Amino acid sequence: MAKGVGFTLGELARALHATLEGDPATVVTGVAPLESAGRDQISFLVDARYAGAAKASRAGALLAGPDVSGLPGPVLRVSAPQRALIDLLVLFHPSVEAVPGIASSAVVARDASVAPTATVGALAVIESGAVIGPRVQIGPLAFVGAGAQVGEASVVHARVALCARVTLGKRVVVHPGAVIGADGFGYVSDGQAHSKIPQVGSVLVEDDVEIGANTTIDRATLGQTIIRRGTKIDNLVQVGHNVEIGEHSIIVAQVGISGSCRIGRGVVLAGQVGVADHLTLGDGAVVAAQTGVHRDLAPGEKVLGTPARPLMESKRLFVLEGELPELVRRLRDAERRLARLEARLPAGEVPDA
Amino acid sequence: MAKGVGFTLGELARALHATLEGDPATVVTGVAPLESAGRDQISFLVDARYAGAAKASRAGALLAGPDVSGLPGPVLRVSAPQRALIDLLVLFHPSVEAVPGIASSAVVARDASVAPTATVGALAVIESGAVIGPRVQIGPLAFVGAGAQVGEASVVHARVALCARVTLGKRVVVHPGAVIGADGFGYVSDGQAHSKIPQVGSVLVEDDVEIGANTTIDRATLGQTIIRRGTKIDNLVQVGHNVEIGEHSIIVAQVGISGSCRIGRGVVLAGQVGVADHLTLGDGAVVAAQTGVHRDLAPGEKVLGTPARPLMESKRLFVLEGELPELVRRLRDAERRLARLEARLPAGEVPDA
Amino acid sequence: MAKGVGFTLGELARALHATLEGDPATVVTGVAPLESAGRDQISFLVDARYAGAAKASRAGALLAGPDVSGLPGPVLRVSAPQRALIDLLVLFHPSVEAVPGIASSAVVARDASVAPTATVGALAVIESGAVIGPRVQIGPLAFVGAGAQVGEASVVHARVALCARVTLGKRVVVHPGAVIGADGFGYVSDGQAHSKIPQVGSVLVEDDVEIGANTTIDRATLGQTIIRRGTKIDNLVQVGHNVEIGEHSIIVAQVGISGSCRIGRGVVLAGQVGVADHLTLGDGAVVAAQTGVHRDLAPGEKVLGTPARPLMESKRLFVLEGELPELVRRLRDAERRLARLEARLPAGEVPDA
Repeated sequence: MAKGVGFTLGELARALHATLEGDPATVVTGVAPLESAGRDQISFLVDARYAGAAKASRAGALLAGPDVSGLPGPVLRVSAPQRALIDLLVLFHPSVEAVPGIASSAVVARDASVAPTATVGALAVIESGAVIGPRVQIGPLAFVGAGAQVGEASVVHARVALCARVTLGKRVVVHPGAVIGADGFGYVSDGQAHSKIPQVGSVLVEDDVEIGANTTIDRATLGQTIIRRGTKIDNLVQVGHNVEIGEHSIIVAQVGISGSCRIGRGVVLAGQVGVADHLTLGDGAVVAAQTGVHRDLAPGEKVLGTPARPLMESKRLFVLEGELPELVRRLRDAERRLARLEARLPAGEVPDA
Repeated sequence: MAKGVGFTLGELARALHATLEGDPATVVTGVAPLESAGRDQISFLVDARYAGAAKASRAGALLAGPDVSGLPGPVLRVSAPQRALIDLLVLFHPSVEAVPGIASSAVVARDASVAPTATVGALAVIESGAVIGPRVQIGPLAFVGAGAQVGEASVVHARVALCARVTLGKRVVVHPGAVIGADGFGYVSDGQAHSKIPQVGSVLVEDDVEIGANTTIDRATLGQTIIRRGTKIDNLVQVGHNVEIGEHSIIVAQVGISGSCRIGRGVVLAGQVGVADHLTLGDGAVVAAQTGVHRDLAPGEKVLGTPARPLMESKRLFVLEGELPELVRRLRDAERRLARLEARLPAGEVPDA
Repeated sequence: MAKGVGFTLGELARALHATLEGDPATVVTGVAPLESAGRDQISFLVDARYAGAAKASRAGALLAGPDVSGLPGPVLRVSAPQRALIDLLVLFHPSVEAVPGIASSAVVARDASVAPTATVGALAVIESGAVIGPRVQIGPLAFVGAGAQVGEASVVHARVALCARVTLGKRVVVHPGAVIGADGFGYVSDGQAHSKIPQVGSVLVEDDVEIGANTTIDRATLGQTIIRRGTKIDNLVQVGHNVEIGEHSIIVAQVGISGSCRIGRGVVLAGQVGVADHLTLGDGAVVAAQTGVHRDLAPGEKVLGTPARPLMESKRLFVLEGELPELVRRLRDAERRLARLEARLPAGEVPDA
């Protein structure tokens, strides 16, 4: 990994706007976690919890925030170590420039439009009327359906399926196996068989969205399923038809969002959360892992559990549930004491009020 | 969407067997939801809950059932508005006729059989001995394994995998990324390593089944995994080996059905339900979202929760769980009152019975 | 299935090291389950629970363990019937030898290395620097990214994606639709937007691992996500970045393992389990279906429920939860009895201690 590449700590300090505590001539050739970093690598401390590991690390240098003291060896001090780590990783692992052009094995419809600066990988299929913007990368074996549009600098990885008329904004990243724009799950049942409601809408994915591997986002029955700007979706997530997810939300792996939900801006749905249909989750709502959401959530509301309850309430209930055996014992004990008292006050001895 | 296409309300009334309240010469050019429909579009009221939205809609016409009054503008009255909506959508969005023939870039085994009226998309692979029936559509980049069969008028979308010897009936629809016929998950463990049990059975999907994007249906160890006629399966569902799902069932997204289960006819499994192995779920059973089913279900039984309990019992338990803090307070209060009473009746004062 | 193939019971007894109770000249032509086996088929009894079905079976012969008596017809006795069943299935369903060579429609980078004994299927893509070992099978429409390595005798089924630099050991099996090496889900948030942390690590899959259909295993941020030797992973499982799963573990369908977890050796995660990030699950831990694991597990610990509790404790709590209505009734009754006692001992009548 990035063998042969090396930077002096002086170069890194300049690039990261860091204050260097150590020799600027020292060379490091890679980035590694605290536990495995060697003398020729730089590591990083982005969370105070790992200060112990940092002190024990054999790394040749450390990237750290302003508050941590007692670190061994050279330190690059920055005010925001997490962001500086991103820059550090990009320095050592620059993204490979894709070579523009259409692979000879790709099958591109005559009336599709592919920007000259775009890259279309081996055995990709681009159907009629599709529009591939400038500097877009379409991976090998990817499918872009009729009339789909992919905005500037987006990356559609290998084996993605963008179905007909799906629209991706700029700088969208879609990981392998994701399916965007399959039919929504809508039927009319006569109590016997199920007749399919044609799913004639589409999907709009705005700028800077990232969509994980094997995630599925269904097209709307009518209108659009919408993923707003900056939202990040993990792997194996299901987004139903006519859902709208607001800007800069975080949807963790294996979440399922049922049809017609309105998920706000800056919402966090942790892993394996399920959201029932037609619900509204307010901006900034936070839903803990595996929670089942059956009602609307207010902006900023934090919930946990199935059924979803306020976070602190659910945590308290989890504790009380664990105490159920003790509660039962106490109730039985109270009943015994009651019986004893009643026996000592036989009916009639003291007249009832 | 369907630009340029237009129908007069008179034409629509005839096509939908509707009674028109309004001018038959009025033209509408598309279908849209109540909230977004404009003067040149028709909208629909299929659920009385949305009567308010219907009255506020700017739609140029409304499709509605017999019971709703007070609607503004022209109304197409039908007895079954949901079914009429399907017809309406099909009128405005007729499915594109696939052009029969095999794409030149597809790779079709010499001894595979493809009906002359079938369509095989770009870069699809059809292996030895596969049989593709009349008017079938095999999408781009789809894989049809050796000896697999696809019945008349079925649609196998882009990037589907039908593994060897899988059989699809007529009018089956399989969405992108679905994998039908991968090996079941079966091993013999010696307390140490796991030896694979060969999965030599197959999968049978009967007529009119629909299978969602990235869903996986495993082949049987021996015999067949079976999806009966008319059943609809959503995205990212897991169906284990040797499962049989009865006719006209509904399996919502991210459900997992373990091996050798017998799911009845007309069963509904809501989103993210899990069903343990070797269980029998009776006809018409209904399982609420995220429920974990660990026991057989009687026909028509409705369950909720993990572990699954009768629906109304689980709902009551959810309420009582929420009242646990209050119950603990009441118990503590009772204990205090008991202690006070006991103190006022010192042992010996009144002889024990 | 295996039509025309037949074995005498004598031949089978020799091949399976079984003791034959019956006529060695009897011929069977296939293996079938107890319920469906006919006179010309052999069936098997690998679990005493099915002894009744075995006695009712019409199978022409039975494979069984030493302890079962009263079986009708010829019996092949073996000490370990489950293992013998594997041998029996392999006899009747020998795996088809793949013909070495690269399909003419595959797209293989000039500087990729493909062993002469390897098979590369139709329309597979193998990128620059990839190494395909001896007797490897790469299925149709599979994707092997730049620098990826596939060890001897591994099988990469149709439509798998192995992303750049992923390494598979020997005899690894990857089922259709699996994605190994997509980016981990890591961002730095400024309370507003999310900046992607480059995911520059990789994935190492050791020998004899099996990975299910549409499962996703993310690459590490730095270093490697590791699946150790002999571990079996079912369909639609999510393995986050920097996870390490120990040897011979079993991960059932739809499990989600969050980033940086250490899963021990011989661990069992049943279906739909979720594991929060950065946890350590000790060797031999067993997690029941749908459980949410929020804390480290000791070696051999068995847990159930959300939140995860010791198996027997959770089972007891499930029972007590079901008794909540009865507990509430008893508490209300105790309160009434208390009130009655208090009324009969008006304040002041007996002086407080």
